[in-house]
Amino acid sequence: MKQRYFLDIAYQGTKYHGWQIQKNAITIQEIIEDCLTKLLGEVTPIVGSGRTDAGVHALQQIAHFDALLTITPDELKHRMNGFLPNDIAINTIDPVTEEGHARYTAYSRSYQYCIHQQKNPFLQDRSLFYWHSLDIAIMNKAANYLIGTQDFKCFSKANTDVKHYICQITEAQWKKHNHQLIFYISANRFLRGMVRAIVGTLLMIGKNEVPIEELDEIIASKNRSRAGKSASACGLYLSEVKYPTEIYQ
Amino acid sequence: MKQRYFLDIAYQGTKYHGWQIQKNAITIQEIIEDCLTKLLGEVTPIVGSGRTDAGVHALQQIAHFDALLTITPDELKHRMNGFLPNDIAINTIDPVTEEGHARYTAYSRSYQYCIHQQKNPFLQDRSLFYWHSLDIAIMNKAANYLIGTQDFKCFSKANTDVKHYICQITEAQWKKHNHQLIFYISANRFLRGMVRAIVGTLLMIGKNEVPIEELDEIIASKNRSRAGKSASACGLYLSEVKYPTEIYQ
Repeated sequence: MKQRYFLDIAYQGTKYHGWQIQKNAITIQEIIEDCLTKLLGEVTPIVGSGRTDAGVHALQQIAHFDALLTITPDELKHRMNGFLPNDIAINTIDPVTEEGHARYTAYSRSYQYCIHQQKNPFLQDRSLFYWHSLDIAIMNKAANYLIGTQDFKCFSKANTDVKHYICQITEAQWKKHNHQLIFYISANRFLRGMVRAIVGTLLMIGKNEVPIEELDEIIASKNRSRAGKSASACGLYLSEVKYPTEIYQ
Repeated sequence: MKQRYFLDIAYQGTKYHGWQIQKNAITIQEIIEDCLTKLLGEVTPIVGSGRTDAGVHALQQIAHFDALLTITPDELKHRMNGFLPNDIAINTIDPVTEEGHARYTAYSRSYQYCIHQQKNPFLQDRSLFYWHSLDIAIMNKAANYLIGTQDFKCFSKANTDVKHYICQITEAQWKKHNHQLIFYISANRFLRGMVRAIVGTLLMIGKNEVPIEELDEIIASKNRSRAGKSASACGLYLSEVKYPTEIYQ
């Protein structure tokens, strides 16, 4: 019987049309499925914890696949890393129980959004270059309003198939880190385009274009056009996906 | 009368054929001279603190130029940053006395050499991927042997125009930093290809291919072929150039 495995994957998303397989565009899911299929000699589909958009990166994306391995997971990891392009890496491969589903059993997801305010040749395509001065104290106050369980339809793209827009945000804060300003956000689930819409809104508040008092109204409006414009994909990183410990073998 | 200025420059060297202007290849010096010449409306040569090879990066390279500015140095910096490609940035522009010469008055130069031992999509072209296990304690012991004033001809490329090979190394140590192993080295001067030859030699020692006791013999031999092969350019960063405080105005 086949065994289920979790792939822990990192990628720089710059050159890809996002995670999810699509016609006429190269995606990360497709590259990894092709790699597994060639190395295992059998068509091996993978299921990711969720999609990432074109240009978005991952420090940790999780995907599962089912296979009868004739080599150890660690050996497969080394072969995959030799085979995959330089901008995609497998961090680990772990066996999980058959209940372990990369998408449905994930109970928490975390993202980071990176901004730099001085031109930096090492941060192109990896961080948003934002030269306006920002009031970080007020951005953190606004971030704090987001914590808790609310209907976040105002931050969701229109073309989505979800049944509801309620998310529980457990962390939302900005921190300075060397030359960067990084936004850390965790929730049980995220809606399409949600982190980039939140970052765009917090930047408007940090620039004093929108008073912080309006944030409650924006959320209550459930209207995407009331929130800020989507921040560029290049600054966004899927950073952690959490699962119940019981699924690990 | 013209005023002399120091440019403090950062660049990712991947796409360039090094610092120094040459025929039939794009170099960082050429890109910056073209930028200054266009913005100032007058041919404006620059003199760097030293060359960096093709693919080598800089966190801080210093170059001087002479000009009669009609805008503030800070305004010129912003215009240059808007004009230069994303992989070259001007950190600061400072007026200096006419004695300030980017090459001849520099009394200390520092480099960093970065290695990572796990595949990492965010480190391609910026760090050497080196999967062999390394004995860092012995590499640091070997690094310590380098400190002091010695003839380092064994680490110099043959085609060089220097009069002697004596350098005073003031710092040489390996440190772990997140996912990377970084070699920090400072000296009053460096010979052509010296840091990459030293790193290649220390890696041979760290891999137990060469016993540490041979390092003294290698140095005494003054023979480049006795030292390790040159470590890849992609891991090397010029990180700091120091000048006497008197030259700053």
